[in-house]
Amino acid sequence: MAEVGAEVMNKRVIFKDFVTGFPKVSDMSVTSNSMRLKLPQSSNAVLVKNLYLSCDPYMRMLMKPGVSVSATSYTPGDVLFGFGVAKVLESTHSNLKEGDLVWGITKWEEYSVIDKPERLFKIHHTDVPLSYYTGILGMPGITAYFGFHEICCPKKGEEVYISAASGAVGQLVGQFAKLVGCRVVGSAGTAKKIELLKNKFGFDEVFNYKEEPDLNAALKRCFPQGIDIYFENVGGKMLDAVLQNMRQRGRIAACGMMSQYNLEQKEGVHNLLYVVTQRIRIEGFEAPDFFHQYPKFLDAVLPYIREGKIAYVEDVAEGLDAAPAALVGLFTGQNTGKQLVALASN
Amino acid sequence: MAEVGAEVMNKRVIFKDFVTGFPKVSDMSVTSNSMRLKLPQSSNAVLVKNLYLSCDPYMRMLMKPGVSVSATSYTPGDVLFGFGVAKVLESTHSNLKEGDLVWGITKWEEYSVIDKPERLFKIHHTDVPLSYYTGILGMPGITAYFGFHEICCPKKGEEVYISAASGAVGQLVGQFAKLVGCRVVGSAGTAKKIELLKNKFGFDEVFNYKEEPDLNAALKRCFPQGIDIYFENVGGKMLDAVLQNMRQRGRIAACGMMSQYNLEQKEGVHNLLYVVTQRIRIEGFEAPDFFHQYPKFLDAVLPYIREGKIAYVEDVAEGLDAAPAALVGLFTGQNTGKQLVALASN
Repeated sequence: MAEVGAEVMNKRVIFKDFVTGFPKVSDMSVTSNSMRLKLPQSSNAVLVKNLYLSCDPYMRMLMKPGVSVSATSYTPGDVLFGFGVAKVLESTHSNLKEGDLVWGITKWEEYSVIDKPERLFKIHHTDVPLSYYTGILGMPGITAYFGFHEICCPKKGEEVYISAASGAVGQLVGQFAKLVGCRVVGSAGTAKKIELLKNKFGFDEVFNYKEEPDLNAALKRCFPQGIDIYFENVGGKMLDAVLQNMRQRGRIAACGMMSQYNLEQKEGVHNLLYVVTQRIRIEGFEAPDFFHQYPKFLDAVLPYIREGKIAYVEDVAEGLDAAPAALVGLFTGQNTGKQLVALASN
Repeated sequence: MAEVGAEVMNKRVIFKDFVTGFPKVSDMSVTSNSMRLKLPQSSNAVLVKNLYLSCDPYMRMLMKPGVSVSATSYTPGDVLFGFGVAKVLESTHSNLKEGDLVWGITKWEEYSVIDKPERLFKIHHTDVPLSYYTGILGMPGITAYFGFHEICCPKKGEEVYISAASGAVGQLVGQFAKLVGCRVVGSAGTAKKIELLKNKFGFDEVFNYKEEPDLNAALKRCFPQGIDIYFENVGGKMLDAVLQNMRQRGRIAACGMMSQYNLEQKEGVHNLLYVVTQRIRIEGFEAPDFFHQYPKFLDAVLPYIREGKIAYVEDVAEGLDAAPAALVGLFTGQNTGKQLVALASN
C-alpha cells in the first residue's frame, strides 16, 4: 500500500471527446501519470485511494456538451468522474480523517484529490460488502427506495411494472414492491436476466422485451387489469406502450430514459393523451433529491440485507483497464446486475 | 312557455356517425321530434327545459368509438350530450323540484328527460348570468381553479405559461395565477384573442403561436428564466417546446391536448428526457375529480365575479341550428372566449 508522501504512478481513465451515438471503448483512454500522494497545504480537500467505481447510465448524458448553465458534462481530455467507494489517505477536511471509508463522487483513477469532500458520505457499516455502496447502499439504492416509496406512493395489491428490471435500480424496486405487497412484473433483454428476475428477485411475472414483437400486447398479457405504477428507466417505445396500459390515477416515476441517451433525435412518444384521460402522474426525480434522507434509508435497507430479505446481484469488472468496456456495455445490456469496477479491496 | 303535459316539437342535434379527422357540421344533423312533456310514473328522472349548452373540446374524444369498457362515446343516430344549464319542469327525484335551475350533463335538445339527475347541480346563485354555469361557474371553472391550485401548487412569483389562453379554461387560469402573484404568459391564435389576453385578462406577456416560426424560441424570449408551471391544453409540438423550457421541479397540469384530438396518428413528443433531468411533474386530471369540492369553489370564485376581480368572455351562438358550427369551430379556433349555445333565457 502506497504511503502518503510517496510518488506513485496513477492510472486513470480519460474522456477523449464528446460522444455521438452509442459510446465506444475508444471514446476513452487509460493512461498513467506520476503523482505525489500529498495534499497541498491550506486546501479543504481529501486524498483518497479509490476502491470501487460505479458504472451508471446517467454518465452517458455527461458525454455530450452541457445544454445549460446548470448542466455539467465531462471535459474532453480530463479524467472521468462518477460515484465510487474510496478510502481516505489524507484529509484537510474537518469531517474526514485518514482511514475513513467513503462513498460519493470520485474520479476514475487509482488515487484522487477530491476538492468537494462535502459530496462524500462516510461509511459506518462494513459488515456488508464495501462494493454495495456503489449500488444497493449508494446512489442506485437511494434512487430505487425513494423513487418507489415517495414518487410512486405504492399501496398493497397494486400492479407494478419495471423496465430494465435486472439493473442496479430495477432489481431493487422490484423487491421493494414485493415487500409492500404489490404484484410485480419486470422486463429485461436476455434469458439470463429473465431467469434472475424470476428466481432470484421474486418477480411475479417477467418478459424478454427483445422477443416481443408488440410491447403493448406483452403488457396487456401481463397486466389484464392495467398498471398502477411504472418505474421508468427506458423511455421511448416502452413508455408509449406503458401509457396505453396505465390504470386510472397511475403513477410513473422517471429517473432515466436509457433508450434515448444515445439517440441524437429522440424517439417521439405518441400516447401522452392517456395522461389526461387516465389522470396519470409522471414525475422525474434524481437520487440527490433524497440524499438528505440517507440515514433513514440505511435504517430501512441495512436490515433487509442483513436478514437476507433482499437479494442483490453485481457485475464486477476488474481494474481500470476493463473500466471503459464495462461502462460502454451498460448501453447494450452487456451487464447482468449492477455494473461496477473493482480497483482494490482496501 | 310549454306546460307539463303538452305535446311539443323538440328540436335536437343528432350525432350521425363516428368522426375521423376534424369534425364537420355535416357530422351532425338538427331534427325535430314530437314529444309529450311528461315523465313516466315511477321514474327517478327529471324533465328539463335546456337554456344553455356548453361546447367543450373533450367532446371530440366522444366522437370516436370508446377504447375501453370505461370510456364513453356518443352513439351514432342518437342525440349529443354535454354540460348545460337547464330549468326543471317536472321531477320525480327527491332533491329537485319544478322551477329549480340546474347545471350538469344534459342533452343537445330543447327538452330533455335526464335519467341520472344525480349528475345535476342545483343553481342557488342567480345574481350572475345563468350562462356562467357552462363556464366560469361550471366544469371549465372547476377545471381551471382546481387544476391550477391543486395540481400546479403555485407560489407567488412563479412563472406560468398557458396555451389556448383565451379559451374557457385558459382565461381563468391566467387570472387565478395573477391573483396568486405569478407572472403569466399566454398564447393564442388570433390578434383578437391576443388583445383580450393583454387588455382584458391582464396577462403579463402574450404571443400568437401561429406567427412564431419557432415555439422554443418564442418561449425562451418570454421566459428567459424558464417556466415553473405550464397549464397544458394543447399537447404535441407545443408540449415539446415547453419541455425544453421548464425549470427544475416545474409542474405541468394536463386537462386536455386539443391539438391531438383530430389526429389519427398522434404527434410524437420528443423531449420527455427533460422530465428526468429537470424533475418535472406532469399530471393529468379532469374536472369531475373535483366536483365534490364545488361549494368550496363557489365560495372562492363568486366573490371574484361579484367584485369584478375576474373578467370573463363568452362566445354565444344562438339556437340549436347554430350549435353544430359552434362545436366544430372550437377545433379551428373560431371562438373567442368560452363557446356556448343559448337556447332560452328561462
